Amino acid sequence: MNVDGKPTRTLWLDQDGTGVCILDQTRLPHELVIRILHTADDAAHAIRTMQVRGAPLIGATAAHGLALAMRADPSDDGLAAAHGLLLATRPTAINLRWALDRVRAALAPLAPAEREGAARRLAVEICDEDVAINRGLAAHGLPLLQEAWARKGRRGRVEVLTHCNAGWLATVDWGTALAPVYAAHDAGLPVHVWVDETRPRNQGASLTAWELARHGVPHTLIADNAGGHLMQHGYVDLCIVGTDRTTARGDVANKIGTYLKALAARDNGVPFHVALPSPSLDTSLRDGLQEIPIEQRDPSEVTHISGLLPSGELASVRIAPAGCPAVNHGFDVTPARLITSLITERGVCPASEEGLRALFPERFPAP
Amino acid sequence: MNVDGKPTRTLWLDQDGTGVCILDQTRLPHELVIRILHTADDAAHAIRTMQVRGAPLIGATAAHGLALAMRADPSDDGLAAAHGLLLATRPTAINLRWALDRVRAALAPLAPAEREGAARRLAVEICDEDVAINRGLAAHGLPLLQEAWARKGRRGRVEVLTHCNAGWLATVDWGTALAPVYAAHDAGLPVHVWVDETRPRNQGASLTAWELARHGVPHTLIADNAGGHLMQHGYVDLCIVGTDRTTARGDVANKIGTYLKALAARDNGVPFHVALPSPSLDTSLRDGLQEIPIEQRDPSEVTHISGLLPSGELASVRIAPAGCPAVNHGFDVTPARLITSLITERGVCPASEEGLRALFPERFPAP
Repeated sequence: MNVDGKPTRTLWLDQDGTGVCILDQTRLPHELVIRILHTADDAAHAIRTMQVRGAPLIGATAAHGLALAMRADPSDDGLAAAHGLLLATRPTAINLRWALDRVRAALAPLAPAEREGAARRLAVEICDEDVAINRGLAAHGLPLLQEAWARKGRRGRVEVLTHCNAGWLATVDWGTALAPVYAAHDAGLPVHVWVDETRPRNQGASLTAWELARHGVPHTLIADNAGGHLMQHGYVDLCIVGTDRTTARGDVANKIGTYLKALAARDNGVPFHVALPSPSLDTSLRDGLQEIPIEQRDPSEVTHISGLLPSGELASVRIAPAGCPAVNHGFDVTPARLITSLITERGVCPASEEGLRALFPERFPAP
Repeated sequence: MNVDGKPTRTLWLDQDGTGVCILDQTRLPHELVIRILHTADDAAHAIRTMQVRGAPLIGATAAHGLALAMRADPSDDGLAAAHGLLLATRPTAINLRWALDRVRAALAPLAPAEREGAARRLAVEICDEDVAINRGLAAHGLPLLQEAWARKGRRGRVEVLTHCNAGWLATVDWGTALAPVYAAHDAGLPVHVWVDETRPRNQGASLTAWELARHGVPHTLIADNAGGHLMQHGYVDLCIVGTDRTTARGDVANKIGTYLKALAARDNGVPFHVALPSPSLDTSLRDGLQEIPIEQRDPSEVTHISGLLPSGELASVRIAPAGCPAVNHGFDVTPARLITSLITERGVCPASEEGLRALFPERFPAP
């Protein structure tokens, strides 16, 4: 999407094709810093430290990480080591395994000398596919916003609440949950986004608010605690969130706190949609609550917050007593029963095995 | 309660009886700063800037504020002006009006020369009553924790989740929601508290975590987003929160985000209790969602966070893009249907008019 009028992606090859350029998302919204990944270690570091994050972008970066690994060591051992290194970076997003397995399967039959080029071509293909998938989410999600607008008698604004960042910064371009929002905005629909700040890492405050502002989409930042109150008072027409992994029956792992918003949406009759690009679908699992691994991150993300000092310097401040114990679960699981629909690149479906099977029959064993 | 072994209150008269000492809660958990209020303006400033906060403590401070006003100007005009000044500081907690109206009603018939002394005696009485009420909450709430402990077969710990700060720092002493927790801990019950950090002002991280640590109660800080996940996985035995105002039918206004936790508690079969000291009961209202005024505070509380730099200095950092629009509702309303019980100083009752009427018949008109 646009950064102050200039179309921008989150990841691209540098001019001589040897490095992979990324926007360092740990510096947003305060600084636009581009970093260049030269090795699989660089890619693993970028994923682990959340310089890149968001399930689709994690997958795309991992694919490029394998390509970088093949330049250094295209042997079978090199391939296995890089696959293992990258897979261990983050546990919850299924796109990571999906992308790594896909690249490894394509490379394994090839002679080592062919692997670097093939890996890079496939990584670029995965990136372009991501953009195409997200355009599909935009196309299939847009009618949900148009219908909300019609239900309001085309008065006021379509009020969307989103959690965390499932915008273009979470993908290569367009985003997942925000793809329909961008499509609506670009089509002239008056859309406004309530942006959950999304503690503890504040991806809403730092990334969603930033990218919406850069593209010119009206929005308002709120504390995560505020969404229920807004829904109780009729200020939210629909919720759209992303997903790090969705099971065969439609249980959705997404950023911690998503479940609370789904409960509030149900209690207030607000539609709750999940934007699900098919690489985030994991049909090997059924019960999301029991089966999806939930990442536990460093407690310091809860006890400390980074931001910009009045002097213009970035700094981390401690907000809890010294030595305060904390836990930091990165994701929660929203059961399918709370989800109005899944928005996929092949259409919108109920959050159920039947719904998913109808759109993605090849992903399910024959009944 | 104890601060590192020393019994401490949030508010007390200074040695010569002319000033009112408070703990400046905007400096916690990083510094223990005592401020002395000498005028009604000082008291209004302390309430408005949240040097003191929490419904019961707001009421107690306002009562002392009227006493300070009577020293400067005990005329009828002085009384009316100070009542108006203090009432305008915060809109949601009903204790503020309750305390101010009570003191004004006691002073109005008196000669001006008698008012200062009478106001101070009544303010001290209100503070002592608050402590007595909270001991009542402790006594009536303790069995809820003992029952939870028995249900677990007296294994592990009693896991309590609380939101915001309804501990002794929100009152003169003991607290409301935390009063039963302190009673349980002091009685040797193994209790552990999940502390919601409570964005945007982080009263959980800065106050609840601090006071629990100082008294020695085991606790763990979590992001507000995490409570649903913890309840889904059985890590919470009961929730206890405070209230800024509860209506005749048991709708509860409390810190923004309380409603989301009540929804998660219901969805997971976790009891959700509200500690309701009777001065927070407002029987003049029925429908909390429509009738309780909800304070909107400065958006900068959402876009900026204060904390301690590694250098030991306090600083405010911006966590959102420059100029990012934000809204900041301070409270939300949890409908009575989501509340398991109200813990009052006269006993535990259902969150309903019948329940409240049975305990506080004098507060309701005859049916």
